[in-house]
Amino acid sequence: MKNEHFLDSFLRPKSVALVGVSQKTGRGTFNILENLMNFGYKGEIYPVNPNASEILGFKAYRNVQSLPKVLDLAVIMTPRDIVPEIVEGCAERGIKGAIIITEGFGEGDDEGRCLQGRLDDAVVSKGIRILGPNSIGVVNSFHDFSSAFIPLPKDLARVALISQSGGFFEGFPDCPFGKGIDLGNTSDVNFIDAISYFEKDDDIRVIVLYMEGIRNVQEFMGTCRRVMSSKPIIAVKGGRGESGSKAAASHTGSLGGKDGLYRAMFRQSKILQVDSIAAVGDIARAFLYLPPFTGNRVAVITPTGAGGIVTLDSIEDHGLQPAVLARETIDGIADLFQPWTDVGNPVDILSAGMAQGYKHVYTKVLESCLNDKNVDIVVSVCGVYTLKTTKAIVTKYPEKPVVVWIPGADQSFIAEKAKRYDFEPYYLSPDRALYALKMVREYYKQRINNHP
Amino acid sequence: MKNEHFLDSFLRPKSVALVGVSQKTGRGTFNILENLMNFGYKGEIYPVNPNASEILGFKAYRNVQSLPKVLDLAVIMTPRDIVPEIVEGCAERGIKGAIIITEGFGEGDDEGRCLQGRLDDAVVSKGIRILGPNSIGVVNSFHDFSSAFIPLPKDLARVALISQSGGFFEGFPDCPFGKGIDLGNTSDVNFIDAISYFEKDDDIRVIVLYMEGIRNVQEFMGTCRRVMSSKPIIAVKGGRGESGSKAAASHTGSLGGKDGLYRAMFRQSKILQVDSIAAVGDIARAFLYLPPFTGNRVAVITPTGAGGIVTLDSIEDHGLQPAVLARETIDGIADLFQPWTDVGNPVDILSAGMAQGYKHVYTKVLESCLNDKNVDIVVSVCGVYTLKTTKAIVTKYPEKPVVVWIPGADQSFIAEKAKRYDFEPYYLSPDRALYALKMVREYYKQRINNHP
Repeated sequence: MKNEHFLDSFLRPKSVALVGVSQKTGRGTFNILENLMNFGYKGEIYPVNPNASEILGFKAYRNVQSLPKVLDLAVIMTPRDIVPEIVEGCAERGIKGAIIITEGFGEGDDEGRCLQGRLDDAVVSKGIRILGPNSIGVVNSFHDFSSAFIPLPKDLARVALISQSGGFFEGFPDCPFGKGIDLGNTSDVNFIDAISYFEKDDDIRVIVLYMEGIRNVQEFMGTCRRVMSSKPIIAVKGGRGESGSKAAASHTGSLGGKDGLYRAMFRQSKILQVDSIAAVGDIARAFLYLPPFTGNRVAVITPTGAGGIVTLDSIEDHGLQPAVLARETIDGIADLFQPWTDVGNPVDILSAGMAQGYKHVYTKVLESCLNDKNVDIVVSVCGVYTLKTTKAIVTKYPEKPVVVWIPGADQSFIAEKAKRYDFEPYYLSPDRALYALKMVREYYKQRINNHP
Repeated sequence: MKNEHFLDSFLRPKSVALVGVSQKTGRGTFNILENLMNFGYKGEIYPVNPNASEILGFKAYRNVQSLPKVLDLAVIMTPRDIVPEIVEGCAERGIKGAIIITEGFGEGDDEGRCLQGRLDDAVVSKGIRILGPNSIGVVNSFHDFSSAFIPLPKDLARVALISQSGGFFEGFPDCPFGKGIDLGNTSDVNFIDAISYFEKDDDIRVIVLYMEGIRNVQEFMGTCRRVMSSKPIIAVKGGRGESGSKAAASHTGSLGGKDGLYRAMFRQSKILQVDSIAAVGDIARAFLYLPPFTGNRVAVITPTGAGGIVTLDSIEDHGLQPAVLARETIDGIADLFQPWTDVGNPVDILSAGMAQGYKHVYTKVLESCLNDKNVDIVVSVCGVYTLKTTKAIVTKYPEKPVVVWIPGADQSFIAEKAKRYDFEPYYLSPDRALYALKMVREYYKQRINNHP
């Protein structure tokens, strides 16, 4: 972390009060203290509960006023009616930030909106910063801190989630998050704060937004344009449709607004918007494990003709181009093939591999494509048993992106093999691979255009 | 199998000659005999190889003429020049069918096209049926038979693949195939034959096509319309784009033609066309594990507001409708929620579950939705630990489709839990679940319209 940021006290607090934490522990009790211990937190913990003297071995305090020292953070999970006075108490005790897990504020009834107004007053008059209300808080696997009341997986993924929901802290498909901030009702800490925080966070290379609604559109767009010069931002907009937009209003009190306006905002901010959460991990992994690229000419190496053909279809679907292999590339590999074979892109290597050894042929063809100046990207349709060879080769060519589509039905088996051979940029279908490549290329093209 | 069909001798032969099988065995030798033994084939095997007296314990024959009896099938993998005379020899020996694995025919050079012409002659004049050439042949896990030269996983999935490539015999993502036919260059056995075969095959409930090109369009469409009255057909068209279409011509000698024409053909035949192979398994599993349905009103049960919102977005994206829960449904579950909660669809059950026991609340809400006449489909956003409860409930309501979206990053973990609780209709993102539901509904609507 380069500079101090007020969100440090939320994401890596040295000390934390858990206000309203229950004495009940064990499965189904959603006990934050227990989760925090299980998550391996190494800072100081101060339970606050007027009915307990001790919880899980920690001395409990009657109220925030009686806390023995100034703390970095308070996590508040009391009934809603007393939340404002607790926040005020925290501020008076010198606590810098509060996560409010309690719900029933701006997203609830009139009384809730009134209570949320009192929180806003505390921020303005007392200077305390508030995350939430109606927030699961934060998770930070890099510093063993989580305010979540559900057990979360720990993962040092260099991807951060900024969300208006804690429901996605468990990750999107194939996309764990190393850090997460749930803005909840966004009464104080907002998208701009959180994006600026991760901009300077060296643990994080990709920022993902789950957004239901936003205010301060101009400032948001300016911040994103600045951050995008160093880190990509991927966004999922919740409540794009009519019914989802209404549901978002009652979920976080967000004003969703017209889908078209949000699309335009993301487009103008150069944020990569996706409509399917399944695509987020595909894109994030391409950012994490591929070198930057701006070219669009794709070579395909395949052990099946059909594999090459559906990959070509995906290349065209997503606006990329099949590479036209250089004459010297074709000449250099032609002797591997039967004389009647028209060697081109895709390079179908099955027969040649069967005749002359698959590894030998694959290695020669992949290296030839990587050396070809007409090729910007290589997609290898690759069995799990070729991953090791692929890994060895791509390590020698760190500047050209190579992704692998591993055909087959058994995704667990494929994932296990990819892990064993430490090969991350693999995909389960060409469609998903090419969509990710398209989005990543758009990002780097934009970055180069803005910073020549 | 209800009636005899000539493809029986291909898919469940009682005896098979392997013509041109090598003496080399072991890893990397692509030995069909070895694969067939490993696949557990229980029929008679006759290797034909003039240079061997015995292969893997089986007596080898000099040529097809010297085979000791009439066989169901010959699998031919010799050099291309002698394939036509071998096929003629097979026909004269009374063998009913031949799979030609050898490549370099219609998809190759002039000589190849000439050789394929001789194969056509043999079909016409001698009555032998040919699968291929340039085909990996067939796989049939239900009868332990595979002509593939690569090891294939065995899976009793009730989904059949009819393909112009063997490259997909290993399955599409999350979509193993219990039976497969690779038509290769389609010189004789074609899509119509194979579709008609699986129409009558009680092992098979869903038919998947991978098509590069087709002739006999009218007959194909008529056949598909007939078959679709009992079984759904899902199609992936390879070579949709310009470059893919060219590659298909050199892959199987197919005339791909304009994408629009194929789209129209599939639409008119009511075939479910998908552009991403990743969607095939999603749809097939919905067919296999959900009851038929034609309604479009979807109720969503979720432990996170955001999960409900992105599900609503997917519902609208795919042309379905959020259900409006009946008054009595809402009244029946209202006491589970905080008084300020506006109970509706999606039903967000987290707070109620935390307060009153998650299983209790979830069970009551899910059963209420299943009993609601305004609800046609239920999507449950469901942690892995709720799968067991879900399974128990849906078993009691066999007539209403329930799918589960399991959020999280670790797909292997999710797959393992779903397997443990024997819960098949689960999806890794709402987008994928709703797309599958949309396609399946289209099929049943069509079927009802055609057969009132």
